Amino acid sequence: VTIPATIEWRNGAIRLVDQRALPQRLKFRTCRSVDDLCDAITTLTIRGAPALGAAGAYGVAVAAHTMRTKRQVEAAARKIASTRPTAVNLAWGVDLALDAFRRDGAAGALLEADRIATEDVARNQAIGSSGAPLIPEQANVLTHCHSGSLACVGYGTALGVIRAAAEQGRRPHVYVDETRPLLQGARLTMWELEQLDIPATVLPDSASASLMAHGKVDVAIVGADRIAANGDVANKIGTYAVALAAREHGVPFYVAAPTSTIDLDTQTGADIAIEERGATELGPQFEGRAYNPAFDITPARLITAIVTEVGVARPPYRRSLPSHVQRAKEAVTPHS
Amino acid sequence: VTIPATIEWRNGAIRLVDQRALPQRLKFRTCRSVDDLCDAITTLTIRGAPALGAAGAYGVAVAAHTMRTKRQVEAAARKIASTRPTAVNLAWGVDLALDAFRRDGAAGALLEADRIATEDVARNQAIGSSGAPLIPEQANVLTHCHSGSLACVGYGTALGVIRAAAEQGRRPHVYVDETRPLLQGARLTMWELEQLDIPATVLPDSASASLMAHGKVDVAIVGADRIAANGDVANKIGTYAVALAAREHGVPFYVAAPTSTIDLDTQTGADIAIEERGATELGPQFEGRAYNPAFDITPARLITAIVTEVGVARPPYRRSLPSHVQRAKEAVTPHS
Repeated sequence: VTIPATIEWRNGAIRLVDQRALPQRLKFRTCRSVDDLCDAITTLTIRGAPALGAAGAYGVAVAAHTMRTKRQVEAAARKIASTRPTAVNLAWGVDLALDAFRRDGAAGALLEADRIATEDVARNQAIGSSGAPLIPEQANVLTHCHSGSLACVGYGTALGVIRAAAEQGRRPHVYVDETRPLLQGARLTMWELEQLDIPATVLPDSASASLMAHGKVDVAIVGADRIAANGDVANKIGTYAVALAAREHGVPFYVAAPTSTIDLDTQTGADIAIEERGATELGPQFEGRAYNPAFDITPARLITAIVTEVGVARPPYRRSLPSHVQRAKEAVTPHS
Repeated sequence: VTIPATIEWRNGAIRLVDQRALPQRLKFRTCRSVDDLCDAITTLTIRGAPALGAAGAYGVAVAAHTMRTKRQVEAAARKIASTRPTAVNLAWGVDLALDAFRRDGAAGALLEADRIATEDVARNQAIGSSGAPLIPEQANVLTHCHSGSLACVGYGTALGVIRAAAEQGRRPHVYVDETRPLLQGARLTMWELEQLDIPATVLPDSASASLMAHGKVDVAIVGADRIAANGDVANKIGTYAVALAAREHGVPFYVAAPTSTIDLDTQTGADIAIEERGATELGPQFEGRAYNPAFDITPARLITAIVTEVGVARPPYRRSLPSHVQRAKEAVTPHS
């Protein structure tokens, strides 16, 4: 497979795949400072909830390696965590690396970031194994936005489930919402599926409802940026509309995410801060005249199941999600 | 108001507003032959169901003025009518002008086209008067695609209703779905609303469901390309998703169209041919890998009311629509 690691530590700096340049070019960006990394996160050079978890941790490692005082590193950590408010993984990665920094200094922060990155891939492969049985033989699978390898450190979450199903010989075909305004579906998901030799068809976001009405979709599956304790899911804008149409047409609607995306401190979707992005993403002429939220909330009642690295969580999510979080904690080798 | 006539007869040819050039430039295209007009229709230089009605009629007039035999004119009429299958108005305009040609020759065809064009504007103003009371004071109105002056000969259908409400001092604010893939909402609807001094906000198509979930939409209103006898509506791809979200959130969902868009010979939406457009509208790299239908079907049960030039049709549509068609026929001064 020719998809490189989304993020890694190289020669004292963070090397990222530049996700804005794809699919035209596969190019890399090196971040040597916290400001540089924050810019990369804000401009979506790196995006995707699990990838942001690793980025947050590596960001603290960069801070620890380039800054003089503990106070500076802590301020940098806060700055990184606040670049994007919705994905809980970003703050999760920052907090883990900051704890490690406090225990073991700069080397500790870097070790923790490397651990998060390595475990991300293993965790996503486990999500794939958990979820693959949900994808029927030769299924037509609809997905929205991009939840593949580049949205993580590697392998992918929702796209990882599809990939695992393909690896098991189930021959899925994927319908890919192009995902306006930044076209992560058309650009990144279509590109990754091509690398993986999985057949795919792109469509305008607004066409997925009629696709389902025509009986062309067997399963819908998406990633998540934050999952509330009640099972409400924040994910890329448009996910909610897909879930409404899926329910209307009896299409199972699955969410795939690591347990690090589950935020048991957030009670419901109404408590999740939704990032509004610039109007000019819709066109330079729309400054002050656009509604451009990055995410929406899909209520738990529309979600058939949530796939994590420890299995398939079913409703009621208030019961199943804490048990997934607990099992994931127990499965991790305790450090120090 | 600075919006020119969408289509008119000038010096023996058809002059169209080139809708692909907007909003960057307001430019015109002159069609002197049937082939030229068919190209303009296929490439969406002119689009919108009522505008296509006039284009079809003027196309027969061009044929009648440039061709030698009745058989040639009839073949040209069939060719024009088949350029786009979904909007019933195109075939309607062609048939009316062809009847006039058979009765009164080339001059008759042109007179009939001019009559259709003139009546289109009056009809749309009547749609506006019928529908304006459905728009509450200072309402937030969601619309999809473009149903304004340039989708007709003048004034607009769904956008005409909003315009009439504004003219009555009700101060609507419009949320405009950008409408992928060709962005008729972002390009044409936003431009027309700016010309009309009606405040408007553009959004990605996929964001309208979450906008409604946040209680930001009071009314949704769209145009139509064909309305079946049971009230099912074919309109721009994405309309169905808007209607599903509107029902979920108790938002009234209205369709505005002239009675010429009602096709009592088509029993339900399942009988409407849906045009599939080229994959490259989504990007040149997607040839053979795209699902790109121009329209979808919104089932009658999701539609609160259908506004025509003779009033507001309510369910059951199998009863109300034939009565609208009948009243519209009676209102027209019989010709010859």
